[in-house]
Amino acid sequence: MPTWDSLDSRPLPEWYDKAKIGIFIHWGVFSVPSFSSEWFWEQWKGQKLAGVVDFMQKNYPPGFTYADFAPHFTAEFYNAEQWADILEASGAKYVVLVSKHHEGFCNWPSKYSFNWNAGDVGPNRDLVGELADAIRNKTDIHFGMYHSMFEWYHPLFLQDQANNFKTQDFVRDKTLPELYEIVNKYKPEVIWSDGDWMVDDTYWNATQFLAWLYNDSPVKDKVCVNDRWGKNIRCKHGGFLNCNDKYNPGTLQKRKWENCMTIDRYSWGYRRNARFADFLDMDDLTKEIATTVSCGGNLLVNIGPTHDGRIVPMFEERLRQMGAWLNTNGEAIYESKPWTHQNDTVSTGVWYTSKKSDTGTSTYAIVLDWPANNQLTLGAPSPSSSTTIRMLGYEGKIDWKKGPQGGMVVQMPIISINKLPSQYAWVFRIDGLNN
Amino acid sequence: MPTWDSLDSRPLPEWYDKAKIGIFIHWGVFSVPSFSSEWFWEQWKGQKLAGVVDFMQKNYPPGFTYADFAPHFTAEFYNAEQWADILEASGAKYVVLVSKHHEGFCNWPSKYSFNWNAGDVGPNRDLVGELADAIRNKTDIHFGMYHSMFEWYHPLFLQDQANNFKTQDFVRDKTLPELYEIVNKYKPEVIWSDGDWMVDDTYWNATQFLAWLYNDSPVKDKVCVNDRWGKNIRCKHGGFLNCNDKYNPGTLQKRKWENCMTIDRYSWGYRRNARFADFLDMDDLTKEIATTVSCGGNLLVNIGPTHDGRIVPMFEERLRQMGAWLNTNGEAIYESKPWTHQNDTVSTGVWYTSKKSDTGTSTYAIVLDWPANNQLTLGAPSPSSSTTIRMLGYEGKIDWKKGPQGGMVVQMPIISINKLPSQYAWVFRIDGLNN
Amino acid sequence: MPTWDSLDSRPLPEWYDKAKIGIFIHWGVFSVPSFSSEWFWEQWKGQKLAGVVDFMQKNYPPGFTYADFAPHFTAEFYNAEQWADILEASGAKYVVLVSKHHEGFCNWPSKYSFNWNAGDVGPNRDLVGELADAIRNKTDIHFGMYHSMFEWYHPLFLQDQANNFKTQDFVRDKTLPELYEIVNKYKPEVIWSDGDWMVDDTYWNATQFLAWLYNDSPVKDKVCVNDRWGKNIRCKHGGFLNCNDKYNPGTLQKRKWENCMTIDRYSWGYRRNARFADFLDMDDLTKEIATTVSCGGNLLVNIGPTHDGRIVPMFEERLRQMGAWLNTNGEAIYESKPWTHQNDTVSTGVWYTSKKSDTGTSTYAIVLDWPANNQLTLGAPSPSSSTTIRMLGYEGKIDWKKGPQGGMVVQMPIISINKLPSQYAWVFRIDGLNN
Amino acid sequence: MPTWDSLDSRPLPEWYDKAKIGIFIHWGVFSVPSFSSEWFWEQWKGQKLAGVVDFMQKNYPPGFTYADFAPHFTAEFYNAEQWADILEASGAKYVVLVSKHHEGFCNWPSKYSFNWNAGDVGPNRDLVGELADAIRNKTDIHFGMYHSMFEWYHPLFLQDQANNFKTQDFVRDKTLPELYEIVNKYKPEVIWSDGDWMVDDTYWNATQFLAWLYNDSPVKDKVCVNDRWGKNIRCKHGGFLNCNDKYNPGTLQKRKWENCMTIDRYSWGYRRNARFADFLDMDDLTKEIATTVSCGGNLLVNIGPTHDGRIVPMFEERLRQMGAWLNTNGEAIYESKPWTHQNDTVSTGVWYTSKKSDTGTSTYAIVLDWPANNQLTLGAPSPSSSTTIRMLGYEGKIDWKKGPQGGMVVQMPIISINKLPSQYAWVFRIDGLNN
Repeated sequence: MPTWDSLDSRPLPEWYDKAKIGIFIHWGVFSVPSFSSEWFWEQWKGQKLAGVVDFMQKNYPPGFTYADFAPHFTAEFYNAEQWADILEASGAKYVVLVSKHHEGFCNWPSKYSFNWNAGDVGPNRDLVGELADAIRNKTDIHFGMYHSMFEWYHPLFLQDQANNFKTQDFVRDKTLPELYEIVNKYKPEVIWSDGDWMVDDTYWNATQFLAWLYNDSPVKDKVCVNDRWGKNIRCKHGGFLNCNDKYNPGTLQKRKWENCMTIDRYSWGYRRNARFADFLDMDDLTKEIATTVSCGGNLLVNIGPTHDGRIVPMFEERLRQMGAWLNTNGEAIYESKPWTHQNDTVSTGVWYTSKKSDTGTSTYAIVLDWPANNQLTLGAPSPSSSTTIRMLGYEGKIDWKKGPQGGMVVQMPIISINKLPSQYAWVFRIDGLNN
Repeated sequence: MPTWDSLDSRPLPEWYDKAKIGIFIHWGVFSVPSFSSEWFWEQWKGQKLAGVVDFMQKNYPPGFTYADFAPHFTAEFYNAEQWADILEASGAKYVVLVSKHHEGFCNWPSKYSFNWNAGDVGPNRDLVGELADAIRNKTDIHFGMYHSMFEWYHPLFLQDQANNFKTQDFVRDKTLPELYEIVNKYKPEVIWSDGDWMVDDTYWNATQFLAWLYNDSPVKDKVCVNDRWGKNIRCKHGGFLNCNDKYNPGTLQKRKWENCMTIDRYSWGYRRNARFADFLDMDDLTKEIATTVSCGGNLLVNIGPTHDGRIVPMFEERLRQMGAWLNTNGEAIYESKPWTHQNDTVSTGVWYTSKKSDTGTSTYAIVLDWPANNQLTLGAPSPSSSTTIRMLGYEGKIDWKKGPQGGMVVQMPIISINKLPSQYAWVFRIDGLNN
Repeated sequence: MPTWDSLDSRPLPEWYDKAKIGIFIHWGVFSVPSFSSEWFWEQWKGQKLAGVVDFMQKNYPPGFTYADFAPHFTAEFYNAEQWADILEASGAKYVVLVSKHHEGFCNWPSKYSFNWNAGDVGPNRDLVGELADAIRNKTDIHFGMYHSMFEWYHPLFLQDQANNFKTQDFVRDKTLPELYEIVNKYKPEVIWSDGDWMVDDTYWNATQFLAWLYNDSPVKDKVCVNDRWGKNIRCKHGGFLNCNDKYNPGTLQKRKWENCMTIDRYSWGYRRNARFADFLDMDDLTKEIATTVSCGGNLLVNIGPTHDGRIVPMFEERLRQMGAWLNTNGEAIYESKPWTHQNDTVSTGVWYTSKKSDTGTSTYAIVLDWPANNQLTLGAPSPSSSTTIRMLGYEGKIDWKKGPQGGMVVQMPIISINKLPSQYAWVFRIDGLNN
Repeated sequence: MPTWDSLDSRPLPEWYDKAKIGIFIHWGVFSVPSFSSEWFWEQWKGQKLAGVVDFMQKNYPPGFTYADFAPHFTAEFYNAEQWADILEASGAKYVVLVSKHHEGFCNWPSKYSFNWNAGDVGPNRDLVGELADAIRNKTDIHFGMYHSMFEWYHPLFLQDQANNFKTQDFVRDKTLPELYEIVNKYKPEVIWSDGDWMVDDTYWNATQFLAWLYNDSPVKDKVCVNDRWGKNIRCKHGGFLNCNDKYNPGTLQKRKWENCMTIDRYSWGYRRNARFADFLDMDDLTKEIATTVSCGGNLLVNIGPTHDGRIVPMFEERLRQMGAWLNTNGEAIYESKPWTHQNDTVSTGVWYTSKKSDTGTSTYAIVLDWPANNQLTLGAPSPSSSTTIRMLGYEGKIDWKKGPQGGMVVQMPIISINKLPSQYAWVFRIDGLNN
């Protein structure tokens, strides 16, 4: 029987840390009501949130069930090649598609979810397979899959739960067969597990699955997993750590971790009632990138497609804006390593990454806000006589001087807007530092 | 491990043979298209029957799936107490409700068919439970359940099949748990198994289930089963024999058997395209009763309710007509036994049943067609000097004489229509015969 | 300006009185909910009947409107040739199809009801035209059309009403253009007007329309109309008199009249919640025929097809049973005239018709109930020495004698059921009477 | 009978020219398919565009009609107060809502479009009235209504057309009653007529309506109309001139005109298949503002809400961005007048407006593109010794000098991005010019 110690000892495949930026995609039957959030079912029937209960009463006949939504998950505009184009344009290096959320609906034609999967009802297509193919055929993006181990309303899970998890019928007939099925069928490079939190890993037989995944599966050499394999496991064991949603500790972490967050502040799934102000803007997004990558994390940026298969223009705009920023500033992000400091000791809103090369270490200072007086005081770098500095995407020379108490004072270049490399989060590359 | 020999040695509970007449009810997602037959799904996707394919092309969008029908299975008019009234009025003594047909949709909220059952999608109700309760609360009818072991498109079944049935995943996760569930939950007095024909009973673990059913289940003392427990079993082992659909051998059988047949000649499920001429009339139905019961069989008369939960007036009329006939003539049917002859040796269309009492044996001659010349010649009965004869439902005296070559010649009473006990299938009770 | 006197002076085309039996067909958007009755809209929104309001609350989302039903009026099983076969088999000689009921939905593609007609929404077909063609191509049945002048919720009608009918916008833009349109397009032989009752004929410009219809329209020589042309008109002027629904006065009337009634006791439109007991049986129907025709009326028997275009088997059965009865007994019905007595003076349930020929007058006694003692005492006929009597459909001789106080005592023939011409309503033809 | 000369002599109410910026809203049943464009019906059934025909074949059953879409026009998220907030934030001073497009569907409960209006089918609400109220209660925006005189498929229009427009049934029963109805009911300050192009104004009785509107209607003092009142009228008579869609002549016009254009380049109605690249960005929008207002036009910027009543975030973002730009630069737009030059004689992409005050005339140069070398050469202004210049939204001094061949050379201020008043289209206010 494999132990977590032995599983944890497997090195995370290299590609993952280098990738830094991924796109998370929440899609499912919840995209049909597309109201409130992807937790719609539970908010309606479990939590009985007034807004959700009211929405159902106003818009549906009394006996309408959640499963009755499924035929309206039509996906008629779903074009995986178009999605792949947008994902590639975002600068992301991996994608994590929800294959099955807590509702239990499988976005692929699973053997273990008869008539509650995208092949049997609704789209009548293999949503997962189409994206996997398009991603692989058209891009260099790594393809990953989110998978919820538990399901809110699966009767076998509820029965196991009623048995205090002394029975494992649900795991035997549903969770594990499904996991083996998706790995064998789609060969994902990320298994992003979720829905683990009610019960320990022993219920889930998680170590058994991971031992197979690491040693015998078709993706054993490249697959990465997260840490959500049991309520006693998350933030402790597994591959990279997700800990909580939107986890962003702000300090360097011992283990590789990931900050998963979402462009719509209030939902992961598509939400028709989202207003413009609910969407993160590029100031928000560049801040997330900087604070995450500087502390050794990857950033997984979420979007929610519609029931009819579209990535709406609002999301497409943000992804393309992020891609444009990364196109200029990606040197500071992709394949970077945390520096000796994560953020500056004097100026707030300045975060560091670094890269080593034959000629030494480059330090990247990501400046989130343009200093009011055009002078940027950095406390963390210790400049030497050979220290040079330049702004990514800008050819001009950058003036700087030593700071009064050490560090550096950088003169922000006054660049007309037509030559400015970006409108948010400017990056200085500093070479030849003492530290 | 139980053997068929031991299982077969269990006596069939007495109530079943006495009951004689049951009602079969085919209801499911197939009641939504309610076109062609309850085999709609297979006719559409498997056999690709032109009429069914054409119906879908003309009336549904291209990507529509069978599971997409389920939310339209609304059952808003389903009133189990009304059904119970009609069933009772039919004179039937047991009812067999389809709990799950080959489509796999469970008419009860099963743990083993998440989101493909009447609790989760469509009716949002326990269709089985409501009828079971109404039948038991309001009538003396025995409640039974039809259950298809196989499912056309269940992926686990298809996988077992692809493995030449060397694996039994489908049986382990679906068929058996379901059977145990319905027995424990609804305590049916008939398990009317079907969908067995592709594979032997060993695949289905049928003997294991029956051993439990007979020895340990909550219905062990009264439950009856049929014979469809494997392709090597039907018409050989089990409880009563169904052999084929509409099985009606016309001769006395060694074992108890049942003739299941349907009022709509061409379908078991409701069929919107049924015309009046497609329905059996009372001449047909009384013929089925007479030919079946005389040969030792039970008759299971099928109706198909609509997607919205109605027994349409056409079916209701036939059931009430049958009930009226049985009200007059039931003495010859319920609790009767086959006689020494099943049908007459001289006159066609005359079938016999019998009953023993302290005062001797009564023989019942069921006369399907009124003799053209008002004289009924019977070759089978051997009259004695004390032989008496009367017509059920009629007070008057019946004249008869010995036949020229033995037997009896009965003078049909010329009764004005307002006094005639029935308009079809008249029954003579003959007492004091030599045979 | 034409007067009612002059309009009334036009003789009713002969075919109508000879026809005696017609079929009424109520079909429209009300066939979609097919609940309660064809007055569904008004019962829901106007009268707010609890049962109807409750039905909507239980089965539809809150904002659902009546017009939202229209796309579900699909008529996919509508086959006008099949309908024509059934109508012909019923023995009816004319048919009256609802072209537009009070809901305003036109079953033909009208120019005056944009997107609220069967060509634009729902069936996407000309329901009226298809039946007119099939009736004319396949049968000798006369084709007629029901038309409601008023509409419950048409805003122009409501406006005229609010103006105390001093404006006639609705009549100018809707009622009259529609009437001209259907006459010119479908050349109906009956215009069965309705919805007249709130306001006098002058509002409707009824005389103007009728003058055109009688003098200049393409159907001027053969068209028949009823009397519903204004609240001051019905039961007084027009062609044949309908007076009230189900009008059946039981006595001879001066003017030609019609008894319109419906096989479903409680509705004219199809009603899913109809039970078997709600349908008239053949005892009821033969009684309607006898009591109506004997008093000089025509009988218009209503059926309600389903939203998907079917005449359900229950209706088909009744129509075919009626046709079978008329096949035997039609001699007493078609082209008959009222006799000197309408019903018998001694025996209840006996109704008379008559026919003149070169050899004298035949009198037909329609006997609704078989006399308990097989003796039928008739007070009305005054027999002579040459009086003969026979039963329609039966070859045998009928014994009779003079009654003690005049009249006749007829010995009902004791016929075995296989030779009985009918199971309900037997007809005696009596020739050579003094009266 | 009023003449165009007399109608044209009415001065356009002042508010309109001062307003400059309006928002156009295309909403209707076309928002249900929300595919291709608001011309969906005509593209499908008239032009038979392959993409549209194919869309219907793939996603709807064969007999589906355009009117069948109407119940899906649900508007459940329609919140007119939210809309009013967004519209106000856009900086627009008037709004023009489609009340009825060529499809004929009335977004208000019209008396002249029974069951083809938002009160009777679909939303079950007065979409027009709700917005009118919210706009008036919450903002200073002027409320206007778009109205299409013709309808593609209205049978009365088609009939008039077949009669070479010698009949005017459609105008009498539909167009005119509707126009009077909306004016009386909603008191719009703009009647934005359309659908005029097939036939002359005499068919439409346009002058009659306008005479009433100008002289007797409840909005006679403030209402503005456009020029689409007949194929011989547009671009010649009426109120302001729209001429063609997206009319933007680039030169000063004698009469007041309006440039109506749309943020989604390819459609006026909401279009699900719109990609991000299909939306105008702020460079595009500021160019439209500058080129239009400088030449005396108003700009009417179109958005298309969804079938469920949302202004999607992509549109909301553009409107808010436009509002932010106008918040800084509105001084050059609202209540401005064309200057002596409309655009610069030397630099492309520079457009002028002006304003007079007691102290003289201010000239506004709207600079669409930041000059590559930070020097802006203007040929049109003739500077004097007292000429001053400043950038709207920026406090700093702007350096300039006389140009070598006259005009001015303005030194673009090098402002760090955190102080830049805008990221697109900067405005210089020049005072004290000779011209």
